[in-house]
Amino acid sequence: MDLTTVNIIETDGGVTAPLGFKASGIHCGLRKNKSKRDLAMVYAECDCSVAGVFTTNKVFAAPVGVTREHIKNGHARAVICNSGNANTCNSDGYDKANATCKAVAEALGISEDDVIVASTGVIGVPLPIEPILSGIPELAKSLERSIPAAENAATAIMTTDTKKKEFAISYNYGGNIVRLGGMCKGSGMIEPNMATMLGFITTDVAIEPELLQCALSGVIADTFNMISVDGDTSTNDMVTVLASGMSNIPTITEKDGAYEAFEKALRYLCTKMCTAIASDGEGATKLLTCDVRNFNDIAGAKKLAKSVIKSSLVKTAMFGADANWGRILCALGYAGIEIDTDKIDVRFVSRAGSILVCENGRGHEFDEDEAKKILSESKITIDVDMKLGDVNARAWGCDLSYEYVRINGDYRS
Amino acid sequence: MDLTTVNIIETDGGVTAPLGFKASGIHCGLRKNKSKRDLAMVYAECDCSVAGVFTTNKVFAAPVGVTREHIKNGHARAVICNSGNANTCNSDGYDKANATCKAVAEALGISEDDVIVASTGVIGVPLPIEPILSGIPELAKSLERSIPAAENAATAIMTTDTKKKEFAISYNYGGNIVRLGGMCKGSGMIEPNMATMLGFITTDVAIEPELLQCALSGVIADTFNMISVDGDTSTNDMVTVLASGMSNIPTITEKDGAYEAFEKALRYLCTKMCTAIASDGEGATKLLTCDVRNFNDIAGAKKLAKSVIKSSLVKTAMFGADANWGRILCALGYAGIEIDTDKIDVRFVSRAGSILVCENGRGHEFDEDEAKKILSESKITIDVDMKLGDVNARAWGCDLSYEYVRINGDYRS
Repeated sequence: MDLTTVNIIETDGGVTAPLGFKASGIHCGLRKNKSKRDLAMVYAECDCSVAGVFTTNKVFAAPVGVTREHIKNGHARAVICNSGNANTCNSDGYDKANATCKAVAEALGISEDDVIVASTGVIGVPLPIEPILSGIPELAKSLERSIPAAENAATAIMTTDTKKKEFAISYNYGGNIVRLGGMCKGSGMIEPNMATMLGFITTDVAIEPELLQCALSGVIADTFNMISVDGDTSTNDMVTVLASGMSNIPTITEKDGAYEAFEKALRYLCTKMCTAIASDGEGATKLLTCDVRNFNDIAGAKKLAKSVIKSSLVKTAMFGADANWGRILCALGYAGIEIDTDKIDVRFVSRAGSILVCENGRGHEFDEDEAKKILSESKITIDVDMKLGDVNARAWGCDLSYEYVRINGDYRS
Repeated sequence: MDLTTVNIIETDGGVTAPLGFKASGIHCGLRKNKSKRDLAMVYAECDCSVAGVFTTNKVFAAPVGVTREHIKNGHARAVICNSGNANTCNSDGYDKANATCKAVAEALGISEDDVIVASTGVIGVPLPIEPILSGIPELAKSLERSIPAAENAATAIMTTDTKKKEFAISYNYGGNIVRLGGMCKGSGMIEPNMATMLGFITTDVAIEPELLQCALSGVIADTFNMISVDGDTSTNDMVTVLASGMSNIPTITEKDGAYEAFEKALRYLCTKMCTAIASDGEGATKLLTCDVRNFNDIAGAKKLAKSVIKSSLVKTAMFGADANWGRILCALGYAGIEIDTDKIDVRFVSRAGSILVCENGRGHEFDEDEAKKILSESKITIDVDMKLGDVNARAWGCDLSYEYVRINGDYRS
């Protein structure tokens, strides 16, 4: 990730940071807790280029099916998203997703097929449509381009997330400022193959829809698709980008320098978003990063990194700050990739230091107290040197704690 | 599983139930706790046919490599197995595994390459060989054909297992009794692709080695390879069978009725062994069975059943007795198999009853209290009807509890 050529600045706020976007979030009544917002809206003041990436699960939610259709023409204007119910595996799911889009279109004076619709929550319970339909006018009325409005939207899409996740960045290209903003939610059922969570990104860059899709798909492969919380791939997940074009840079129509700068900024933003999801995985106490370095093939390196990040035994060892590196070798071994065990070095790295625990596939003597200190930090990197080439891959995940079990043991109650 | 044609009787004991086998188990000093046996031996009084199936992990233990070589000629006489150390990822692993076989051969007056050697425990810590070498003469001296001796061996191979796992069965073929016995250990790192645990089976059937291997490989595919505790595939696992030929049936040299009867008995024993491992998965409170019925392809049906059994979200829901069937559809959806979501029925079945929760891919109204009662039992079947054919597959697993996290958070301490 070479970010040296584009100077990215992190700013406050989220989806309303780019020019042309308003947001709102309210409690409409889907959640029992009246202080929990459950319906979010994002609105663009002008026509936007749109791109999206969706779950690979064969069982997918009605809103996923509807949104896939709506973004096919490359244009959209609004996002509506509810929490509290997934609108999946219900016989009237499509009717209700379509009715939601219709109500949004009427409230905003836009076309139905310019609406991105998304849902998150429990599967298989019919979606109560009345709270949504009666909430939409209020949502539309409270739309604002402000930091609190973006925050309301970001909190309305949360489920078991413990923290709201919104980010905004800007960069300078040829004297013009381009802004990107994003909000997302985790936090269980997080597993690669696009199939991670909900993410809504806005930007005021001007870009053709095809190029926007190309940038998004490429970035997702290295970011959202490289995180894993529990190996489950959800039925509902999507990441979309709306590009208003209201920054002053000329429309991006080919893979030139302007495209590259935007792609780098999008990658930066998506990395922020997806690591926030991984570190807020259900019950997580630690963000884990696995770097697989010096391998001979990128697809293999990605599989190896994800195999380590996904291992329940590695995750519980990290929870316990236990330098049980054998489990890392074990996870590399069952990834289904040809490897040379006798070359592998493993290091644990954190703010507290770096420690070599395995050299050439064999135990390297190390100080247990020092290892414990390093692994007691909240951000840990498992650094794996394969010594077989010059290709690197990175995956993110979290530890497995008692809390994960508690949260998921009785989710519906 | 048609067991009607062979009348299988469960008997007491384990590996010493078949004619020709002695066993022993002692504390040699590998484990800190002196009341915990850590070295087991099985000895056959005559030459045996042998078969084995081993881990598919690319990182595998030295004893796995040595045993693979030793069984190549189809014959063996003894098993030596230690707990407390995996003898994996150590530079002197092969030397020590070979030294162990040499000491066993000398103590028993047999050939070195007739020894099956196995280890289980922490990876990457050099194996202390002295306790093993000094324990072997004592082990050999205490060999007995008795139920307590078999039990000593079965307890010596345990790690985090909470229960010893040994079984014995017999059947009558043409007026002659054939006996099979087995011991095994789980209980984390349990995941298909042979790569499950340690299992040692004895029998007094007379059978050619090739046919013994064929029977074992076929049975393992439907039993040990269909269980999953945590999705991790260990570096050390193996299942071996020693056949002494001391029952009075003629040697099995082709796939005739005698072969079929033995294969059914072996399947019965392996089902007992592998479900014992699943229900004693680390921290498990419940044995889960997933039946995928009426599918159109056996490989696909197996993948679907395993995908459900492996899902952390399904496992935690079962721990909490929460009838969250949407997670089952979700796990079917990401198994990577072509399915017809709109045909799927899901039932929860236990001793307390049976309840339909999903019909044709949509929620079926059900009584939550009744579902809670059914899911509060210790053995639960998730019954999935795909309505696409006549092929069935079964997988076994366990729920995911707080205890799993506690056990694995600091395994090495």
